[in-house]
Amino acid sequence: MTALPLKEALNQACHEIERTIDVLLPLVPGDENILIEAMRYAALGGGKRLRGFLILETAALFDAPREAALKAAASVEFLHAYSLVHDDLPAMDDDDLRRGQPSTHKKFNEAIAILAGDALQTSAFEAILDPSTKLDASIRAELALSLAKASGSTGMVAGQVIDIRGEGRALPLEEVSRLHALKTGALIRYSAEAGAILAGISKSDPRRQALLSYGADIGTAFQVADDVLDSTASTEELGKTAGKDEDASKSNYVALLGIEGARAEARRLIERARNSLEIFGPRAETLRSLADYFVERRS
Amino acid sequence: MTALPLKEALNQACHEIERTIDVLLPLVPGDENILIEAMRYAALGGGKRLRGFLILETAALFDAPREAALKAAASVEFLHAYSLVHDDLPAMDDDDLRRGQPSTHKKFNEAIAILAGDALQTSAFEAILDPSTKLDASIRAELALSLAKASGSTGMVAGQVIDIRGEGRALPLEEVSRLHALKTGALIRYSAEAGAILAGISKSDPRRQALLSYGADIGTAFQVADDVLDSTASTEELGKTAGKDEDASKSNYVALLGIEGARAEARRLIERARNSLEIFGPRAETLRSLADYFVERRS
Repeated sequence: MTALPLKEALNQACHEIERTIDVLLPLVPGDENILIEAMRYAALGGGKRLRGFLILETAALFDAPREAALKAAASVEFLHAYSLVHDDLPAMDDDDLRRGQPSTHKKFNEAIAILAGDALQTSAFEAILDPSTKLDASIRAELALSLAKASGSTGMVAGQVIDIRGEGRALPLEEVSRLHALKTGALIRYSAEAGAILAGISKSDPRRQALLSYGADIGTAFQVADDVLDSTASTEELGKTAGKDEDASKSNYVALLGIEGARAEARRLIERARNSLEIFGPRAETLRSLADYFVERRS
Repeated sequence: MTALPLKEALNQACHEIERTIDVLLPLVPGDENILIEAMRYAALGGGKRLRGFLILETAALFDAPREAALKAAASVEFLHAYSLVHDDLPAMDDDDLRRGQPSTHKKFNEAIAILAGDALQTSAFEAILDPSTKLDASIRAELALSLAKASGSTGMVAGQVIDIRGEGRALPLEEVSRLHALKTGALIRYSAEAGAILAGISKSDPRRQALLSYGADIGTAFQVADDVLDSTASTEELGKTAGKDEDASKSNYVALLGIEGARAEARRLIERARNSLEIFGPRAETLRSLADYFVERRS
């Protein structure tokens, strides 16, 4: 079986993940249907599904069951969607646009957006704990625990708080790195490791370690590239308000390294990420292309 | 071993659950410590720990391991605390007081309160998935899945949405019952069932069914008693703004049944809940007293 070109593989994964999300969030007859509509609006409103794709691709390295991998992919997209819904709230980033569309609290209202984010987080755990995937309970529990560690007060949310606390002052490079390793990095590392967890590969296995290193490097590269993108692209291209990071005097890699320095750092990280995949040989070709894509992307 | 009188048993459980929460939420040196402080403020700021106590008492019926039961009790209190933090936000109930103290967004700020609630939800899953409890992974996964079903878009959050949607119009009794069965009932049912899950008792076992019935009835009685309390007590006694439900024309049991009718309904439910416990004989004496306490409580 030859690997699909990256764009085709991404498109196909997107389609499958969205079909899985659609099935996991059925509309209901009761008054609470507005909640489901808001959850679907947030979870199905586009996005490249890079985290879900990482899970599908790393799971495929070990021939982990596809249905379980799809549930895990939908789960991480629920988690990501919840974080965006809450990030956009007036008390947080106060963003009216998300991917060129009204953010969830503008489309619905603040109360529904808070609750839809809350329920999306719950759904993320529900989707991977679902016993119908036929995965061993030990694997489901390990996945759910890893997701919790990556997304709560020791992961993504901690990073968001450091980001908020750092507004208006220039953080040193190591603090900016730590911020992003938590805020966006933790969930990307989880996604890269999840395929190995799904296949029951033990924590000490060098293949699982290789995926963690790969995930860490593309996660950082992703953020560096995001900062470059934010400092160079227009609002129209981004589908969100451009230059917000600079406006709020947020610390970012471009401010610390300059545009060219940031671009070079992203390339260095991607090269190292590609090298981490050597252990998998030609099977990891799509993940290698994905590493390049992480810094090449334009939206 | 003789059972402790209820008040002593409640006090002791409170103390043990809070010590467990304290250990699960250690302060950290980084900028994100403010998040942990807010989580601790919300999770350790009092409360009767009725949900956690239910888990401890139902677990004790089956001699389930105490340490695991305490983690599960802390977990459900995290979940409950997150729901209160988000409920109090300006976009939701807009309540400045919680148990006589500033609510989390008043003590910190809205962004930190949103994120602390988010991270408390995550911590709820993390605490029960923690393998250090030595529970079988199948039990940890089942507990976490049950918690997710009780708290997300098919449980507590669905009930909150129905509540918001019903404001300003009088809902019929069956809709009010459904609202509360989801909003507060689902987590109480989960707590009553959790002891059986912790002990590996199967879903079809009549003892687990008995606990579910018990949980359903005390959950409804709790809400009926809460409506009675809210319509008769002063703000000072409640530690929160009294009469809010009537002000907002929310549907409640007192409006539907009258004060005396509501009191009688609560007594009927408690009697039925006590009867559900027959299968356990004298071991369930504390749970019987707890049922009475649910409608007798004054704050």
